[in-house]
Amino acid sequence: MSSFSFEDLTNDEVEAAEALYGGLTDDVRRVLDLTIRTRADAEQVGRARALLREAADLLAADAPEGPAGIHYNAHGRSWNWGNTVVGLRNAFAPPVRLEWSDDGTARSAVHLGAAYEGPPGSVHGGVSALLLDHLMGETASAAHTRVTVTGTLTLRYARPLPLGAVRMEAAVADESDRKITVRATIREDRPGAEPAVEAHGLFIIPRWAQQPETPPGIGSLD
Amino acid sequence: MSSFSFEDLTNDEVEAAEALYGGLTDDVRRVLDLTIRTRADAEQVGRARALLREAADLLAADAPEGPAGIHYNAHGRSWNWGNTVVGLRNAFAPPVRLEWSDDGTARSAVHLGAAYEGPPGSVHGGVSALLLDHLMGETASAAHTRVTVTGTLTLRYARPLPLGAVRMEAAVADESDRKITVRATIREDRPGAEPAVEAHGLFIIPRWAQQPETPPGIGSLD
Repeated sequence: MSSFSFEDLTNDEVEAAEALYGGLTDDVRRVLDLTIRTRADAEQVGRARALLREAADLLAADAPEGPAGIHYNAHGRSWNWGNTVVGLRNAFAPPVRLEWSDDGTARSAVHLGAAYEGPPGSVHGGVSALLLDHLMGETASAAHTRVTVTGTLTLRYARPLPLGAVRMEAAVADESDRKITVRATIREDRPGAEPAVEAHGLFIIPRWAQQPETPPGIGSLD
Repeated sequence: MSSFSFEDLTNDEVEAAEALYGGLTDDVRRVLDLTIRTRADAEQVGRARALLREAADLLAADAPEGPAGIHYNAHGRSWNWGNTVVGLRNAFAPPVRLEWSDDGTARSAVHLGAAYEGPPGSVHGGVSALLLDHLMGETASAAHTRVTVTGTLTLRYARPLPLGAVRMEAAVADESDRKITVRATIREDRPGAEPAVEAHGLFIIPRWAQQPETPPGIGSLD
């Protein structure tokens, strides 16, 4: 596994980069969605492709090979811009943003459009697994105060989850020594909705993460 | 759940649409990847965003709301262009393409780049779950000869899966009545690699799918 990398950036510099590339990502997310839905004809598609290639060439002029990684600065901040679920520069990531309750429950509400489809009109079962895995990992890490990795994950599919507004929540059910059990659900975001998928997972605090030189703010290694 | 929809298209017409929009999707996939990796400055990002918006407006001129759905024609062909894992018009989908062995084992080799990252340099654990869920569903459906839905899915994470070339395989382990058990693995695509994630899942043939009016070629409802 690649290591975490220290970056000598102020929090203001991190935020400026997030604003710049986050805006770009929003535009790409819209293109990704439209590419699934459009009925544009060959001439229009040809023009769109020429524009996309010109944009790609601009971005490619200085784009080192390799993934984004996870970075941290000297001010307690860490960022994982490429992450599939929460990455601010990943146009597939909805992105998920977490809210924490005082009791340790993590919640997120998100809108899932055409890019997340499995059965017709429904969220792909594997997308529910992807989102829950991430939410549960963050929950196990207790809001990034300890490093965890996924041991096992079990999902029970109770009913279809329609595309659109969904909400999910996760909480630690049990913990002992380096093992943390987390339970979670995802469902439609409307009053009275029953869980579409119920999950439980076993998360582990790796031995190396108990060393004092572990960088701060890393959290879940999903 | 939305229903499947019949389309009065010849196979040639389906293939022409796949060539047209599949090419567009390839360009979007490249932009998505570069958006994660680029170090372009504010001026270059601004120019790229203007181009992306112009492309989006072209595609948006005729883009009905709602997901792509699953369609079939009168010639035994079905397509799910928006699907998160295999959709030909979904720029997040790697896309996965399956190969079937005579013994019913389904295999797929795929390259996972920066958009699939979780831990630094590694595939997101939830992405492994997403890909395996889909592969296992297709396996349960016996190459689209019966309709299945996911009941439960259990994943055991054995070791990190580096980004890059990976391969996965799935096979039916047991079946009785309407219940099908599938086992699957994903690992690095190199000789001697051990599984990074091992999965088993229970898939169900829904009662409605045993009716004679079920459209052909639907397969897994992942």
